[in-house]
Amino acid sequence: MTRPAWAAVPKARLAAPGPVEVPPFVLEALARPPLHHRTEAFEALLHAVRKDLARLACVAPDPGVLIVPGSGTTAFEAALRATVPEGGRVVAAHAGRFGERWAEMARALGHPVEEATAPWGEPVAPEAVAEAVRTAGGGGASGVAAVTLVHSETSTGVLHDVRAQAEAVRAVAPEARIVVDVVTSLGVAELRPEAWGFDAVVAGSQKGLLLPPGLGLVWLSERALAEPPEPVRAYATDLHAERSRQARGQTGPTPPVTLVAGAAAVLPALLADGGPERLWATRARLNDALLAAGAAIGFAPFARTPSPAVAAMRVPDGLRAPDVVDACAARGVRIAGGQGPTSATVIRPSTLGWADALDALALAATLESVARELGHDAPYGAAAGAAARVLEGA
Amino acid sequence: MTRPAWAAVPKARLAAPGPVEVPPFVLEALARPPLHHRTEAFEALLHAVRKDLARLACVAPDPGVLIVPGSGTTAFEAALRATVPEGGRVVAAHAGRFGERWAEMARALGHPVEEATAPWGEPVAPEAVAEAVRTAGGGGASGVAAVTLVHSETSTGVLHDVRAQAEAVRAVAPEARIVVDVVTSLGVAELRPEAWGFDAVVAGSQKGLLLPPGLGLVWLSERALAEPPEPVRAYATDLHAERSRQARGQTGPTPPVTLVAGAAAVLPALLADGGPERLWATRARLNDALLAAGAAIGFAPFARTPSPAVAAMRVPDGLRAPDVVDACAARGVRIAGGQGPTSATVIRPSTLGWADALDALALAATLESVARELGHDAPYGAAAGAAARVLEGA
Repeated sequence: MTRPAWAAVPKARLAAPGPVEVPPFVLEALARPPLHHRTEAFEALLHAVRKDLARLACVAPDPGVLIVPGSGTTAFEAALRATVPEGGRVVAAHAGRFGERWAEMARALGHPVEEATAPWGEPVAPEAVAEAVRTAGGGGASGVAAVTLVHSETSTGVLHDVRAQAEAVRAVAPEARIVVDVVTSLGVAELRPEAWGFDAVVAGSQKGLLLPPGLGLVWLSERALAEPPEPVRAYATDLHAERSRQARGQTGPTPPVTLVAGAAAVLPALLADGGPERLWATRARLNDALLAAGAAIGFAPFARTPSPAVAAMRVPDGLRAPDVVDACAARGVRIAGGQGPTSATVIRPSTLGWADALDALALAATLESVARELGHDAPYGAAAGAAARVLEGA
Repeated sequence: MTRPAWAAVPKARLAAPGPVEVPPFVLEALARPPLHHRTEAFEALLHAVRKDLARLACVAPDPGVLIVPGSGTTAFEAALRATVPEGGRVVAAHAGRFGERWAEMARALGHPVEEATAPWGEPVAPEAVAEAVRTAGGGGASGVAAVTLVHSETSTGVLHDVRAQAEAVRAVAPEARIVVDVVTSLGVAELRPEAWGFDAVVAGSQKGLLLPPGLGLVWLSERALAEPPEPVRAYATDLHAERSRQARGQTGPTPPVTLVAGAAAVLPALLADGGPERLWATRARLNDALLAAGAAIGFAPFARTPSPAVAAMRVPDGLRAPDVVDACAARGVRIAGGQGPTSATVIRPSTLGWADALDALALAATLESVARELGHDAPYGAAAGAAARVLEGA
């Protein structure tokens, strides 16, 4: 099955946990002539987008979700600057590449940082986070200004129980701000920032929102908004200043207007027929189908508590993960490999983008075919059949 | 597996033998501001498109392929008017809905028409065509002005051996013009109009060319061009007048400029890495995979000589074809049902559009899942596994 016989015209498919496949009707919206951002038309668009974003994120429409030009990383930095005073101690809970990044970022911003970790593939236990807070800097929990958590750790495929982690933190440090990376969980896994007592959640456009990258998203709690650090060391991304601007349909920095137009196209589609609850169920089922397909041919799940954003799996003995990734790429399917310590052993296919059950079935069948090509014993139909069982609820 | 759990945002897939899925890079070309058609820029575009069309159709670049604003039917009428004198006798070979249409069209244009037929699902034998020509109108072969053939009969999924049919006709009526419907075979199945002694071939944009409908295509033989009917009863679609215009990069009627721009985007991609021969092999393999998938779960091939444009199959006893079509549609997959006498018993999924092996695998798995949903015994993975065997050449 060589590439020339694989397609009439090569079809590139993004099956990695971001950037993701964007629906054509969103591409069409992105291609329209950009609105000027100081117009009533753009104000109305921003209002509509922020209203839908609040619904997707399960937060009250006021203050709602703030948009930040840039990536999820830009937005995370804005969230830290908006919630943690200069020099405030930070505890970073991580067991993967993205959680590590927030520890690095906090250090770079001048904060003393303690870490609560677990082996890759495992979640960080709520007790471990609480313990790190309790013992932070020798000064105890009262000296901790903020704790960073990661909901869906994209590098390992682990979904953290951030609700339990936050509860454990509150029990020992009720004043510590809880800043949560929801980059690959917003619109993908159950997330209730207000009910779960978070102070900030941070996401980006290029994951569950089915948009290109370029739009960061931050929600802040009433508490975080009421007590800003003095001073807020930010200008373009000063979220406290943005709050009142965006409530009026305006922004300080020039917003990425075409991405806002794209968001206006995609959000009603994402929220149709049941809102975020339906999305969570759909995403979980698609990802479970991929995991079942892998398991049926010897690719064991890597994450102990899998995130619906990505189906991280260990390649069987005798296979190398980069070879699997390359063989998929030769078929026009871009899956992700493992990162860091798992680069030789883990693959990360994903239905995070504009994907449906047919994509999950095709990915399952492709993985099976690739495994055969690489000399692994994968019976014809085993992976696709296992995926079908999950998708049919059998 | 209800629709709400099937996709995060519903994904509509065209898996019928036209209209077909158009690649995004072609949609992008279609969305560009239209060129004025009386400009050097458009002349250059038309030259490039006609050069590539000639390569795709395996004909010399001069006179090459003429474009006709309209559908394949518009183009077929233009081809008849360009090749058959008023009142000339026509023999139409058909065993399906599209071949019947050319008989109806010839009658509507005032031609006496004889027919050579076969049961649906069977090809019309070359001997049957020759016999119809020999006995036409009681006057014999010398009274036959033209014979219409259908290469890929989309309603039944039959690929005709048009080369043998044409040879059989020439043996009894060497002067009869041979006009061939290649609507779903151009760029899909082996086609050599010059080498096979045809006088006209007719296609449209919305099939193997991966474009929206709106652009008809006609190639005429040197013989047909040298001896036009006197008079040619056509104006906007007078192909003899168009020949010299299009050789200069111009057209009589205003051409569908955006579709020409779309053709300029798609043709180099279709012709890359091996030209039409690679396309024919790819198309056949994808369609064979669908047929094998169906056969593995009791859907027998309907066509005795299958066209790579469509995988017509009989539904198993106990299933109704419209139910299968509807159940696929509920999953966002638009396959075709049977036409006319086969409407209750035949389905026609297709990888004719912008499809690759992943689409074939997903279609196979979907058909299997739908069969189960409708109460048919289809083992998990049977259809997808059978498709994978074909795609891998196992």
